[in-house]
Amino acid sequence: MKKIIDYRTIVGDKVISDIYQKAGALRKKRIININSTYAGGGVAEILGSLVPLMNDVGVQADWRIIRGTPDLFNITKKFHNALQGDNINLSRIKKELYLQANESFSQYAYIDQDCVIVHDPQPLPLIQYYCKQQPWVWRCHIDLSRPNNELWDFLKNYILQYDKIILSSKDYVRADIPIDQVLFQPVIDPLTAKNKHLKDVDVHKYLKKFKIPTDKPLIVQISRFDKWKDPIGVIEVFKKVKKKIDCRLVYCGGMAGDDPEGIIIYEQVKKRANNAISSGDVLLITHENNILVNILQRVAAVILQKSLREGFGLTITEALWKGKPVIASNVGGIPLQIKDNETGLLADPKDYDYIADRIIEIIKNPEPYEKMGKVGREYVREHFLVTRLIEDYFDLAAKMVH
Amino acid sequence: MKKIIDYRTIVGDKVISDIYQKAGALRKKRIININSTYAGGGVAEILGSLVPLMNDVGVQADWRIIRGTPDLFNITKKFHNALQGDNINLSRIKKELYLQANESFSQYAYIDQDCVIVHDPQPLPLIQYYCKQQPWVWRCHIDLSRPNNELWDFLKNYILQYDKIILSSKDYVRADIPIDQVLFQPVIDPLTAKNKHLKDVDVHKYLKKFKIPTDKPLIVQISRFDKWKDPIGVIEVFKKVKKKIDCRLVYCGGMAGDDPEGIIIYEQVKKRANNAISSGDVLLITHENNILVNILQRVAAVILQKSLREGFGLTITEALWKGKPVIASNVGGIPLQIKDNETGLLADPKDYDYIADRIIEIIKNPEPYEKMGKVGREYVREHFLVTRLIEDYFDLAAKMVH
Repeated sequence: MKKIIDYRTIVGDKVISDIYQKAGALRKKRIININSTYAGGGVAEILGSLVPLMNDVGVQADWRIIRGTPDLFNITKKFHNALQGDNINLSRIKKELYLQANESFSQYAYIDQDCVIVHDPQPLPLIQYYCKQQPWVWRCHIDLSRPNNELWDFLKNYILQYDKIILSSKDYVRADIPIDQVLFQPVIDPLTAKNKHLKDVDVHKYLKKFKIPTDKPLIVQISRFDKWKDPIGVIEVFKKVKKKIDCRLVYCGGMAGDDPEGIIIYEQVKKRANNAISSGDVLLITHENNILVNILQRVAAVILQKSLREGFGLTITEALWKGKPVIASNVGGIPLQIKDNETGLLADPKDYDYIADRIIEIIKNPEPYEKMGKVGREYVREHFLVTRLIEDYFDLAAKMVH
Repeated sequence: MKKIIDYRTIVGDKVISDIYQKAGALRKKRIININSTYAGGGVAEILGSLVPLMNDVGVQADWRIIRGTPDLFNITKKFHNALQGDNINLSRIKKELYLQANESFSQYAYIDQDCVIVHDPQPLPLIQYYCKQQPWVWRCHIDLSRPNNELWDFLKNYILQYDKIILSSKDYVRADIPIDQVLFQPVIDPLTAKNKHLKDVDVHKYLKKFKIPTDKPLIVQISRFDKWKDPIGVIEVFKKVKKKIDCRLVYCGGMAGDDPEGIIIYEQVKKRANNAISSGDVLLITHENNILVNILQRVAAVILQKSLREGFGLTITEALWKGKPVIASNVGGIPLQIKDNETGLLADPKDYDYIADRIIEIIKNPEPYEKMGKVGREYVREHFLVTRLIEDYFDLAAKMVH
């Protein structure tokens, strides 16, 4: 069972007692979270930590997932991409299936909690199928700075029914939405299998188990096989690095249960890497395993995050928490974590030469970059751990729930 | 939205008004169902009908799924098989992962309903992680007539905490369980995409869309790729039939989200069918589509269900509802639906020659078997439609909930 007290040695006494104090103001209040998947992606991960910890301190937090068909997830994936700027053919049938899935979910999810938090677009229209008797909050984890206009206008029909919107960055605040928009920067949980401290002996045991070679420096990107993570670009950068210095690339990413595009992108990446895969210099790992991610981040020489869009980039937070040199794209929420030349390096994701050169530099002369990694770890401790998010939610709920 | 009144023309006025009367006794009562998947398999399907319809008549029914990792579903699949007689290596780690998944689910599922219905073994131990304040019912959809003893003894630790057990057949009643065991025979929903009436023009449209040839008589088995459905045996029987009469076999079955064995079995079947697949005489369909199942059952010359074990066999109920000739194994719950030579034909699943001969007979001389199909349809109308199950649950809840 997850317990707040276990975080004391990481975050200190004051944070722990603040959380208990804030929970006191919400005693016997019930908060329900609704998203689209129990596993895969940052939202499911953070709910898996947040919700049990809220319960541990006496706030009745709940977590439900909407029932979706593959059809629904195909559509909402297109919505996700279009919210980040892609074109979309917003047909009548797409809208209908999206609304029908939400309507039928409302027929077997009775909602009488004191506060409802809806995550991302999949369950967004749920609100109109209930007799609203409590505050509803839309927690959008997506970069909203340049959404497809037609889709945005359609989704506003539902967004406008909410009491509050939570976004991950001030850049996503929408002038065309008259509702209060607040910022909750995302967080990681330092005590999960993905982030917890590991003994050297365990690191070696798992490296053997997962057959990860460590004879050459490892460049690691942990990301789903998603075009916005630019896995093809990662391969191209690696090819440039590899010409000048011997190393390996590990691209490790699961396939989210609500993302039907993953397998297509994976095949494209495999084709592009081709010879480098057969020679063992590029390892593509689709096996989803949190301990493996933890290990890869700990043994990497450089952590890369070459995203083209990024709501926030929790894999960067994870890497910084491990005190590692990180080079990441200067997009979306990434600069909130990577202060260039302080906690890591920022780069234009299109500038393959610059990224390749910095990677080579880090491998050749790691010391100054490892120092940045240490600064990054403290920055994460202060700003991006799950304990902070619990306080954010409790503060917000205290204002809304009576 | 699903509505009870839409069933009036199928089940008649009395059934509809009985349901409303019984719902009246449960007004403002809340019933929660917990199982392991929203999609795939009979349990998810029936909950998808039952729960909305209960809500439609004013009983607050809820449906939640337990959060499982692939590890958990691997283990519970082994449990499922061992409950039906397989051996199992019941290691400490398996037990721990099973209990941990249930314990952590309890940390984000607050249960305060008036009655809790837990389906199958996956969420069975949940009961011990709650302060029990209402009746809990274990609804077991599995054939319990010869469970692995060691596993059964382990599961009894949790089963004994329940107030009531619901089983699908009197053959599954356990003398070693002192708790009240009641029988609810499974049902189908006549208004879903899988069972609803289809116009001929739509049948033809979909046959074209799904590329199903109808130039030869079709033998159809609708089942998951699961060893208990004996897909290999189906191929062997088809080979015998095919020697004497020209026909095709369609084996159509999705892969349930909580069943990791499906893909392995599929590969075995593919290998066994081999040439018959390349010649087009055997079609293996893994694409999960309810309309496709509906169509296949309607255009089949013979519906086969060659299961080795079968809790009940809802695909048979679906086939009978379409008034089709059915030949099925004389195992588990199948004889509850197939009265030999009245509503269809029963066979020993090991007697390939007998099954093959009967299939040939049906194809050559369909008329008497089509009459049996019509009798089967009326038998289903009377005994196995979702409206009956709603009454069963309401009757049970009225006794337990105060």
